Amino acid sequence: MTTSYAYLGPRGTFTEAALLSMPESKNATLLAAESVNSALTMVREGHVLGALVPIENSVEGAVPTTLDELGHGETLEIVAEVAIPVEFALLVRPGTQISDIKRIATHPHASAQCLEWLRENLPGVNVIPAMSTASAAQGLSEGAPYEGAIASAVAAGHYGLDIVQDGIGDNDAAWTRFVLVRKPGFAKPSSGNDKTTVSLFMFENHPGALLEILTEFTVRGIDLTRIESRPTKKQLGDYFFSIDFEGHVDDERVGEALKGLHRICADVKFLGSYPRHASSDAVVKPAVTDRAFQDADEWLRSIRTRTN
Amino acid sequence: MTTSYAYLGPRGTFTEAALLSMPESKNATLLAAESVNSALTMVREGHVLGALVPIENSVEGAVPTTLDELGHGETLEIVAEVAIPVEFALLVRPGTQISDIKRIATHPHASAQCLEWLRENLPGVNVIPAMSTASAAQGLSEGAPYEGAIASAVAAGHYGLDIVQDGIGDNDAAWTRFVLVRKPGFAKPSSGNDKTTVSLFMFENHPGALLEILTEFTVRGIDLTRIESRPTKKQLGDYFFSIDFEGHVDDERVGEALKGLHRICADVKFLGSYPRHASSDAVVKPAVTDRAFQDADEWLRSIRTRTN
Amino acid sequence: MTTSYAYLGPRGTFTEAALLSMPESKNATLLAAESVNSALTMVREGHVLGALVPIENSVEGAVPTTLDELGHGETLEIVAEVAIPVEFALLVRPGTQISDIKRIATHPHASAQCLEWLRENLPGVNVIPAMSTASAAQGLSEGAPYEGAIASAVAAGHYGLDIVQDGIGDNDAAWTRFVLVRKPGFAKPSSGNDKTTVSLFMFENHPGALLEILTEFTVRGIDLTRIESRPTKKQLGDYFFSIDFEGHVDDERVGEALKGLHRICADVKFLGSYPRHASSDAVVKPAVTDRAFQDADEWLRSIRTRTN
Amino acid sequence: MTTSYAYLGPRGTFTEAALLSMPESKNATLLAAESVNSALTMVREGHVLGALVPIENSVEGAVPTTLDELGHGETLEIVAEVAIPVEFALLVRPGTQISDIKRIATHPHASAQCLEWLRENLPGVNVIPAMSTASAAQGLSEGAPYEGAIASAVAAGHYGLDIVQDGIGDNDAAWTRFVLVRKPGFAKPSSGNDKTTVSLFMFENHPGALLEILTEFTVRGIDLTRIESRPTKKQLGDYFFSIDFEGHVDDERVGEALKGLHRICADVKFLGSYPRHASSDAVVKPAVTDRAFQDADEWLRSIRTRTN
Repeated sequence: MTTSYAYLGPRGTFTEAALLSMPESKNATLLAAESVNSALTMVREGHVLGALVPIENSVEGAVPTTLDELGHGETLEIVAEVAIPVEFALLVRPGTQISDIKRIATHPHASAQCLEWLRENLPGVNVIPAMSTASAAQGLSEGAPYEGAIASAVAAGHYGLDIVQDGIGDNDAAWTRFVLVRKPGFAKPSSGNDKTTVSLFMFENHPGALLEILTEFTVRGIDLTRIESRPTKKQLGDYFFSIDFEGHVDDERVGEALKGLHRICADVKFLGSYPRHASSDAVVKPAVTDRAFQDADEWLRSIRTRTN
Repeated sequence: MTTSYAYLGPRGTFTEAALLSMPESKNATLLAAESVNSALTMVREGHVLGALVPIENSVEGAVPTTLDELGHGETLEIVAEVAIPVEFALLVRPGTQISDIKRIATHPHASAQCLEWLRENLPGVNVIPAMSTASAAQGLSEGAPYEGAIASAVAAGHYGLDIVQDGIGDNDAAWTRFVLVRKPGFAKPSSGNDKTTVSLFMFENHPGALLEILTEFTVRGIDLTRIESRPTKKQLGDYFFSIDFEGHVDDERVGEALKGLHRICADVKFLGSYPRHASSDAVVKPAVTDRAFQDADEWLRSIRTRTN
Repeated sequence: MTTSYAYLGPRGTFTEAALLSMPESKNATLLAAESVNSALTMVREGHVLGALVPIENSVEGAVPTTLDELGHGETLEIVAEVAIPVEFALLVRPGTQISDIKRIATHPHASAQCLEWLRENLPGVNVIPAMSTASAAQGLSEGAPYEGAIASAVAAGHYGLDIVQDGIGDNDAAWTRFVLVRKPGFAKPSSGNDKTTVSLFMFENHPGALLEILTEFTVRGIDLTRIESRPTKKQLGDYFFSIDFEGHVDDERVGEALKGLHRICADVKFLGSYPRHASSDAVVKPAVTDRAFQDADEWLRSIRTRTN
Repeated sequence: MTTSYAYLGPRGTFTEAALLSMPESKNATLLAAESVNSALTMVREGHVLGALVPIENSVEGAVPTTLDELGHGETLEIVAEVAIPVEFALLVRPGTQISDIKRIATHPHASAQCLEWLRENLPGVNVIPAMSTASAAQGLSEGAPYEGAIASAVAAGHYGLDIVQDGIGDNDAAWTRFVLVRKPGFAKPSSGNDKTTVSLFMFENHPGALLEILTEFTVRGIDLTRIESRPTKKQLGDYFFSIDFEGHVDDERVGEALKGLHRICADVKFLGSYPRHASSDAVVKPAVTDRAFQDADEWLRSIRTRTN
C-alpha cells in the first residue's frame, strides 16, 4: 500500500482543504470518497492508511454519521483532529457576470450561512439545494441549469470556475472539525494536551446515569469538551452518550476514569486519543497529574504492607 | 386565520404522516413548507396556527436545524410532541417491474437504513441522493431519470406511484420524533406526564459547568431525556446545551430547577412544556411532588415567623 | 422577669468569661447553672431570658450535651455565638509556694493541655480529676486535699486564690465556642454574615443520604462550617447529622436549601440563625444572592404567564 | 511479653465488659488503664499487645480523646471493634435498704440516662458526679459518703456490692462501641464485611472540600458510617474530618478511594481496617467488586496496547 488517505469528497470539499492542511497529506495520495461510510470502509479494507471525515461543525453540530460509523463494524481509532475556518465563495463559470445570476446551487447549510450577503447583493436569486458545496461547483462546471454555486474558494480551482467574491458568509467564526481515523495501533503517545473520544452505553436507561458518568470524569479532574445523547436505534428513548474529553488514554487520570466507566457502563467504546487542535494549553490540576497518581500508589502500598 | 398548520414537506413526508396522526390536524388545513425554517416563519408571521417539524430520529439523532431555529428570532414554544415508527417502501411508477430498476433515489439517511434489503434484492442498483424521501417520490412521478424511490408508503398515494414492497428498512425499531410549535401562550397545563425543552448558555466555557447544570436537575428529582452540547457559532469550542427533561414548567420541582438554572447560566431559553409522548407513566418521587414543595413552603414560613 | 442570663457554672468557668464579653451581659443578672441541661431548663421555664452554653472547643470538638439538649423538649433557638481563647493558669491558696505543690486538681481536658508545662515545672506532681476547672478552684478555696488547681485566671478572683503562673497551656490557639440560646422569636435579622444550626434526621439510614444532604447546600452555594453524624439513641448505627452552615434563615438561598432538606429528610430541626463570630466577611457568590433569587422568580413568572 | 491487653479502667467499666466479650481476652492478662491516653501509651511502649478503648456511644456520640490520641504520636491501628448494650444497675453496700439511699454517685452521662427511673423510684435523691461509673462503685465499696452508685452490674461483683435493681436506664437501646488498637502490622485480611477509619486533613478550609471528599467515596460505591468535622487545634474554624466507612484497605474500591483522597487532601491518616461488628451483611454493588476492578484493569490494558 502506498501512502494514501481517503477524505469525504468530491474534490473541493472543505474536508479536502482540511486534509491538505495536515502534515500527513504531504507526499501522500489523497482519494475522494463518496460518503463517510465509504471513506471508513476504505480504511477497514486496507485500501488507504486513514481517512479524514468531518465530525462537528459550528452550524450543524456533530456529524451523526461519522460518530455512528466509527462505533459500528471493525473498530477504528481517531489519531488526529483538525479544525478549519469555513469560508464561502460565490463561484461562476468563466465569463458569467454577477447580473447574469438567477439561480445558485449549494448545500442548504451553506446557503443558510450566506443569507445576509445574498439579500443585499443578489435579492430575489433562486437557491437550489445540492448534496454538497463541492457537488454544486462540480455541477456548475458540467453545465447544470444554474449560474452560480456557493462553495469553498479551492473548489474554483478544481472545477475551472471563477470566484466572484470570497468570504460571503454571515458568520466570521464558522468552522468545521475533522478527524483522521486509522486502524487501531497507530495512536500517538500522550502529548500533555490531548483529547479522547468514547461512546458510553448504559445498562438500562436509568435516571441519574448521566450524573454518574459525569462524576467519574469530575473526580479525576477531567473536562468534557462535547457530549450528546444519541439514540441506540433499538427503541424510542434508549440512548447512549457520545463524549469527547481532555486527556490521553495513557494519562493516569484518564485510565482511572475509563476504568470507572467500564465498571458502571454496559459498554464503553474507545474511539481514540489524539493531540488536541487548540491554541490554548491544557491545565492539569496538581491533584490529578501522573505524579500525583504515582505518589498515591506508593502511599497505598505502604499502608497495605505495614508490618510490626 | 382559518385553522391551519404547516409541516416539513413536500406532501408525503413522514412529518405529514405524523401530523395526520395528531388530533390537531382534524378539520385543519395542512400546508407543506419547503424547510423547517420556512415552516417556523409561517408560524411567526401568523399564516398558520402552528408547525410540525422533526426534532430527533433514531438514525440521525437530533435535528440541528429545528433546535437552532426555535431558539433564534421570535420565540416559539413547543406545545406537543409525537413520535412515529419510520417504515420505508420501495415505490415505482405504475407498470414498472422490479427487474427494470437500475437507479433508486432517496434521502441518504433512508438508503443507509435499507442497505441489507437492497443488497439482497437489488444488488448493484445505483442509489441517487435526494433532498428528502418525499421529493424522491415526487421526482419519480414527474419523470426524473430513475426507476424507483425509497419513501413512506403514504407518498405512493400522493404521487400516484405503486408500492413494490413496504417495510424494507433494516431496523424494525426506527422512529422519528416531531414537535408542534406555536407562538407563546398556548401551552397546555401540567398533565403529570410532561416534557420540557430548554437551551442553556454558560457564562463561560468553564469546566464543571455541565455537572452544575445536571445537579440543578438531580437535586429536584428531574430526569433528563436528551442532552447535547451544541456549538454557539461564536467560536470553536464554545458550546450551549440543548436539553429535554421530564416535567412541566408549572410543576414546582421544574419551576425551582429552572430558577436555579437561571441563576447559574448566562441565558436560559425556555422552548416549551408539553404532554409526553410515551406509553409509560411518569414516576415523581415523593420528595419532589407539588405537595412536598408546598409543605416545605409552609414549614419555612413557620420557622421564619416564630414569635415568642 | 428582670434581665437575667444563665451560664454553665460554677462561677469562674470559661463560659462565664465568655458571657461577660458579650454586650447582652451588660446590666444583666448572670446566674450560674449546674449543667447545660439546667441552664436550658431555666430558659424554657422563663426564669432567665437566655443561657450561654459551650457548643464546641478546639480540644474536645463539639459538646454533645448542648447539641442534644437543644433538639429535645421545647424548642430553643441560638441567637448569638461567641468564641474566646482558652488560657489556663495555675492557682494556689494564698501563701502556698510552688515547691509545696504535690497535688493539682483540674478537669482532665485542662490537664491534658498543660502536660508539657507540668513536666518541665512540676515533674512528678499528682493530677486529680475534677468535674470542671472552676470546681477545682472552688474546692481548693474550700480546703480540698490538694495544693493547686488549673483553671482560668478569672477563677482566682472568684475564689480568693493566687495565680502562680498564667498561660501554662501547651497550645496557644486553644479556643471554645459558646452559643446564647433563647425561646423562639428573638432571632436577629440577616446581617449578611450569619450562621445557622440544624439537626437533620433521615428517613432511613440509606447510603448516599449524606451526599444528598450536602448537594442541597452546594447547589445553593452554601458552605458548611461543622458536621457530625450523631447516634439517634434508637439503635446502633442509626444517625442524624448536626450541621452548622453559613447564612441566615431569611436569606433566599438558605430558605430554598432548608425547603430542600425538609423534602428529603424525615425531620429538620431548626436551631437558629445568628451573626457569625468571625473576623472574615462572608462572600456570597453572585448566583446565590437574594437579588439573583428574586430575578429568577420574576423570570419564571414571566415564562409561566406568557400569553399570545 | 505475655499475652496482655489494656482497657479503660478501673475494673468494672463497660470497657472491661466489652473486652471480656472478645475472643482476644481469652487466657490473656487484662490491665486497667487510668485513661485512654495511658492505655494507648501501654501499647506504644510495648507493655501490652493492644488496648480496648471506647470510640463512640449512643449518648455522647464519638469519644474525642480516642479519635485524637490515635492520630497523634506513633501511629496505632484499629484491628477490631465491638459494640455492647449499656445497661445500668443501682448498686449498694451489702445490707443497705433502698429507703436508706439519700445520695447516689455516678458519671453524669449515666445519671442522665436514668432520670425517669430515679424520679419514680427515688424522688429527691441527691446525685453526686463521679469520674466514671466504675469509680463511683469503687468509691462506694471504700466507704465514700454516699449510699448508692449507678454502674454496670458487673461492677457489683468487682467491688463486693449488691444490685438493688438492674436495667434502670431510660433507653433500652443504649450502646457503646469500642475499638481494639495495636501497633501497625496486625490487620486482619479483608473479610468482605469490614470497616475502615481515617482522618482527613484539607489543604485549606475551602468550601466544597467535604463534597469532594464524599464524592471520592460515592464514585467507588462506599458508604460512610460516621463523619465528624473536628477542630485541628490550630485555629478557630480549621477542621479535619474523622470518618468511618465500609470496606477494607485491601479491597480494590477502598484502595482507589484512599488514593483519590491522598491526591486531594493535605494528609490522610489511615487508622485501620477491621471486621465490622454488625448483624447485617455488607452489600457490595456489582460495579465495585474486586472482580469489576480487575476486569476494568484488563480492559484498559487491552485498549492501551492495541497494535495493528
